[in-house]
Amino acid sequence: MARPAHGGNLSWAARLADCSPNAILDFSASINPLGTPRSAIEAIQAALPLLRDYPDPNYQQVRSMLAQIHQLSPDWILPGNGSAELLTWACWDLAELANTVLFVPAFGDYFRALKAFGAEIKTCPIGADLLGNAGLLLNNPHNPTGKLFDRSWILEKLHRFELVVVDEAFMDFLPPDQSQSLIGDVQEYPNLVILRSLTKFYSLPGLRFGYAIAHPDRLKTWQERRDPWSVNILAAKAAEAVLQDIEFQKQTFDWLQAARPQLFEGLNQIPGLSPHLGAANFYLVKSECSVSQLQKDLLEHDKMLIRDCLSFPELGDRYFRVAVRLSSENQRLIDGLSTCLLNMMS
Amino acid sequence: MARPAHGGNLSWAARLADCSPNAILDFSASINPLGTPRSAIEAIQAALPLLRDYPDPNYQQVRSMLAQIHQLSPDWILPGNGSAELLTWACWDLAELANTVLFVPAFGDYFRALKAFGAEIKTCPIGADLLGNAGLLLNNPHNPTGKLFDRSWILEKLHRFELVVVDEAFMDFLPPDQSQSLIGDVQEYPNLVILRSLTKFYSLPGLRFGYAIAHPDRLKTWQERRDPWSVNILAAKAAEAVLQDIEFQKQTFDWLQAARPQLFEGLNQIPGLSPHLGAANFYLVKSECSVSQLQKDLLEHDKMLIRDCLSFPELGDRYFRVAVRLSSENQRLIDGLSTCLLNMMS
Repeated sequence: MARPAHGGNLSWAARLADCSPNAILDFSASINPLGTPRSAIEAIQAALPLLRDYPDPNYQQVRSMLAQIHQLSPDWILPGNGSAELLTWACWDLAELANTVLFVPAFGDYFRALKAFGAEIKTCPIGADLLGNAGLLLNNPHNPTGKLFDRSWILEKLHRFELVVVDEAFMDFLPPDQSQSLIGDVQEYPNLVILRSLTKFYSLPGLRFGYAIAHPDRLKTWQERRDPWSVNILAAKAAEAVLQDIEFQKQTFDWLQAARPQLFEGLNQIPGLSPHLGAANFYLVKSECSVSQLQKDLLEHDKMLIRDCLSFPELGDRYFRVAVRLSSENQRLIDGLSTCLLNMMS
Repeated sequence: MARPAHGGNLSWAARLADCSPNAILDFSASINPLGTPRSAIEAIQAALPLLRDYPDPNYQQVRSMLAQIHQLSPDWILPGNGSAELLTWACWDLAELANTVLFVPAFGDYFRALKAFGAEIKTCPIGADLLGNAGLLLNNPHNPTGKLFDRSWILEKLHRFELVVVDEAFMDFLPPDQSQSLIGDVQEYPNLVILRSLTKFYSLPGLRFGYAIAHPDRLKTWQERRDPWSVNILAAKAAEAVLQDIEFQKQTFDWLQAARPQLFEGLNQIPGLSPHLGAANFYLVKSECSVSQLQKDLLEHDKMLIRDCLSFPELGDRYFRVAVRLSSENQRLIDGLSTCLLNMMS
């Protein structure tokens, strides 16, 4: 069975660990460990009678709600079948430009979507200075390093690139006073596309809901290209519910405020490991030992899954990524990693 | 509010009828009136804990089940976010050919998907003889006429066209001995793509599940282009459940066997109306009076929605389409149409 190129592939891990997928403690997908909010589950249950109708092709209700949250008019927002679908359409636009700059290491799905439309990709080490060019695709915070780009840095790029696509899939995890989101700037830059996702923060990767924020003309073109009912009705209704779930949002910030430094400190104290100081709900960690071996040992001994970085050619077998989870789970990871590394180095 | 170009837009109808969307008796979308099977609802409820995980990007479980049903190997099957998503990818392939023949009147979404990729469209009146050409896109049974193409007629076209895409969205409604499905032929024709949907038969338009059957090389290319988790996990699990729901399938055939001729006879006896004798779970009806007026009257007086054909330029204001519903509902439609037409013609 092929090694997965994305986190969260539990069936692969379960076979290696010889257990059911449920029994795996998954640090590989950077998902909120508080789990799917009850408000989402209740909204889905209430929406089951709606399955027999087509969704409203304009998704007016959830668009209006997102518009209100972001203080925009609804035509600046387009819901999608996860932000991965919207990435596809964004990359179609990028592919029409002479080339697109992509910081590496880069999220693998960016290559998929750019290549699908034959885009010319110019990779560039993260942090390098950019002179300006045709297209720019980046995530903020960056995955897998966790690096947070300053809003001002990206704004400057908007004057030097024809089209800038910013994937803010992890921005929700930053407290409002630390956010570097560009949503407040979108009306000034018709060459800006922002992608957002409910997947990570609301622990809903199975449901598929994301949205794009960009100039209405661009979103209208995407909507004319794609199929009319791209978002299933249960996802639309769950989105409406969680966006209003202030209590869950507060619980998430409370958890993360303590768990983030805990995991960083724990990882930092393990001989042979050096975590990068990132801004997101995950850490990229450099290891002195082979990560594929470490990953295998952790699965077999402790049924814990870390994200190897073999799919990032710039990182290879000496890096892994772990999500911040609940304090007790983070501790289990720290203990498991310590033991495995001790065994490997002895 | 703009007139919808597809059936099933209940929010539009509800405003005209001045009632809630639930109160509309919808003949415009050709959906099984038995409603969503209980097996689907139960499968969705059981799958709620899976929302916090990414779906298996290969959708191995539901693919294997479909493979078994159709006596194919799983790599000949690709699940999609409704067949509308798969139509998008099929039309990308068609767009690479010199042109694509489309029978008119044609389902509006075919134009959307072909135009998205700049395909050259050659429209052709339904039933015309085709000499052979580059691409051919048709549905069988045909929508909106209900015409059933013989399997042998399409097989002959497969020798004369580079690529033939057959949308079998309504084929499930034919009893097995009357089916003209090409699924049994797909392994002999790498230039054949078949699209299927669970939407209509299992009354699940809100959930989004369809699948394509075609040569594995073609499906692999589509999968590399599109986003990795195109089918939400609840749709995948509901699909697995309904495909095994023999009881629901039997109930549907029992209902349809009686309700189809009942509706046809009833429509046929109304002065001013002439239903086409189609093979699907809907009828195209010619009207001597304006259909937009008739549609409006029916909504206002009886809260019943018929599908006008204004979005089909070849049909215009003298045709409408109605789904076969439960016997009592069909009778309500027949009565309502009779009254409205009597008023209009007097």
